[in-house]
Amino acid sequence: MTDQTATRTGWLAPDELQSIRERVPLVYVDAVPVRVDDTGHVTHVGLLLRVMADGTISRAIVSGRVLYGERVRDALLRHLEKDLGPVALPRLPTSPAPFTIVEYFPEPDISGFHDPRQHAVSLAFVVPVDGDCVPSHSSIDLAWVTPQEAVSEEVRRDMTGGHDRLLRLALGYAGCLP
Amino acid sequence: MTDQTATRTGWLAPDELQSIRERVPLVYVDAVPVRVDDTGHVTHVGLLLRVMADGTISRAIVSGRVLYGERVRDALLRHLEKDLGPVALPRLPTSPAPFTIVEYFPEPDISGFHDPRQHAVSLAFVVPVDGDCVPSHSSIDLAWVTPQEAVSEEVRRDMTGGHDRLLRLALGYAGCLP
Amino acid sequence: MTDQTATRTGWLAPDELQSIRERVPLVYVDAVPVRVDDTGHVTHVGLLLRVMADGTISRAIVSGRVLYGERVRDALLRHLEKDLGPVALPRLPTSPAPFTIVEYFPEPDISGFHDPRQHAVSLAFVVPVDGDCVPSHSSIDLAWVTPQEAVSEEVRRDMTGGHDRLLRLALGYAGCLP
Amino acid sequence: MTDQTATRTGWLAPDELQSIRERVPLVYVDAVPVRVDDTGHVTHVGLLLRVMADGTISRAIVSGRVLYGERVRDALLRHLEKDLGPVALPRLPTSPAPFTIVEYFPEPDISGFHDPRQHAVSLAFVVPVDGDCVPSHSSIDLAWVTPQEAVSEEVRRDMTGGHDRLLRLALGYAGCLP
Repeated sequence: MTDQTATRTGWLAPDELQSIRERVPLVYVDAVPVRVDDTGHVTHVGLLLRVMADGTISRAIVSGRVLYGERVRDALLRHLEKDLGPVALPRLPTSPAPFTIVEYFPEPDISGFHDPRQHAVSLAFVVPVDGDCVPSHSSIDLAWVTPQEAVSEEVRRDMTGGHDRLLRLALGYAGCLP
Repeated sequence: MTDQTATRTGWLAPDELQSIRERVPLVYVDAVPVRVDDTGHVTHVGLLLRVMADGTISRAIVSGRVLYGERVRDALLRHLEKDLGPVALPRLPTSPAPFTIVEYFPEPDISGFHDPRQHAVSLAFVVPVDGDCVPSHSSIDLAWVTPQEAVSEEVRRDMTGGHDRLLRLALGYAGCLP
Repeated sequence: MTDQTATRTGWLAPDELQSIRERVPLVYVDAVPVRVDDTGHVTHVGLLLRVMADGTISRAIVSGRVLYGERVRDALLRHLEKDLGPVALPRLPTSPAPFTIVEYFPEPDISGFHDPRQHAVSLAFVVPVDGDCVPSHSSIDLAWVTPQEAVSEEVRRDMTGGHDRLLRLALGYAGCLP
Repeated sequence: MTDQTATRTGWLAPDELQSIRERVPLVYVDAVPVRVDDTGHVTHVGLLLRVMADGTISRAIVSGRVLYGERVRDALLRHLEKDLGPVALPRLPTSPAPFTIVEYFPEPDISGFHDPRQHAVSLAFVVPVDGDCVPSHSSIDLAWVTPQEAVSEEVRRDMTGGHDRLLRLALGYAGCLP
């Protein structure tokens, strides 16, 4: 891939991205995949098992960068397909407004959301998925847990960077926080 | 249906409902049916052609009362099925919060939303529908219009009670108000 | 007060209200009073100590009925003044949409929100208050607690009808659920 | 200012910023200043008269970049003070979630929101201001218009980059879109 192509497609060389990461906050999207019943009520939450930015293996939600020139909706769809496979059939919300924003900082204490690599502002969405989910890419596994299980101490312990808290915010938004 | 059954199911005799309508605001749901593309972007809005409470024939959205003992999600589903048929496959939002509330008053000037029969507080939702829609019940027809057409003077003229304005609020929420 | 006045102002005789309560869901508003810093970040949550509908003394949030002919915003202001006094200076949100809805049922298990008197659909708002709060009316006391304290077991035990859960939903909406 | 300080405070040299602008979307905030009545109902919208990125003089809303290491709330407050003066007394919303997001692209046709300098993803908020507003910095003037005036052809013509549309989305969110 030539440099010109890289710029046009939004992909950046590692050192270039590293340099930018020290200068501006990056735009991210976070997606909490859910199973819903006929009335839209959330019955299960999808948790990936993946290698995190800090090297640990953790339960995590779908998360990734918005590229230069990319629509937020397209970034959401791209990251959902990357992590859940091509037949997950995600149902993106009709509103472009995230249910909350997550401010990740290299320092753990500023907002409670932590990413050692960067300052990122993430738009968070709850996304029902109807199809078969096949953890692909860097994800090792995908588990579906009930809202009750999602707020348990066990799941909290397995999540890093504040993702356990984001999960509770998502359940609150969906009206099913226990 | 006996009186007891009526009370249990939430259905009321006309004079009983009339009496209540003069004493408390009723709980309603409004649903704006939409067609969306793969990324959740609204491409079309569904408008019913129906006989309104005031006797005129108007373009309208799905609207109806929440019964005693009925969950709001169940009321939404019931009214969507009543107006769009049993195979419309509505996708109710994951959040129980409406995108706006509509306060209908017997007087046209209080809120700009008008229902000659009653004071109603309505929870308004945008609902993607995937399946075939067959206008049933009291609806004469169903038309799918683009967001651009939905805000046109022609559609505005055909809607009463403030439904044209509710349509614009729904398009704003979905980020596709022209 | 004559019957006619009663109807016009939305106040109802006890037996009349009782009869309606068995036939339709009532429209309510719930308000979680908060203290915020200069940037709008919630620092404290206001909890009333009051005699509840079920006779117990509990920690509670501001809650009340929307009267016939009354705007939702006016009902919110009226109940906030009733419970927090006339100089609380509540700052109602600009959007008419509640952050969540609460469905109270006479049966405790349907939604997790419980009101032994009735089925009520309540519009819930987070409302910053700037002024001095003087618990008036039926409230015995008002305590300001931190978000951390608000989710503690101690506060959970002191709240009934699901108000502790509503509190957590409110903190999630405000981005400060621990 | 040394380079190190620049990086720490988030300020960037013009050529550095230019280089980043070609590689990643930037994080922005947009704020629509409003006057509200006692019940939170929007009565007026504040429109700046300013020199835009494209050199024209236009009506505009408050808009600016989120710096590296800066909280979104702090960026909002900083830009509001910069444009409305130090005694505007803005009341930031309790929720960190924007009412909508605005995707500005160098190409006018991708989203309908246009910034010739960059791809920016902006978090948009409606912010009541209570105090005296003194247009400072690059703003020439500040005008308060009614919601009715804000959607007029005259105001639409005076706004560029899609800000007239953002204004209508804000009015929709506040429930006062005519």
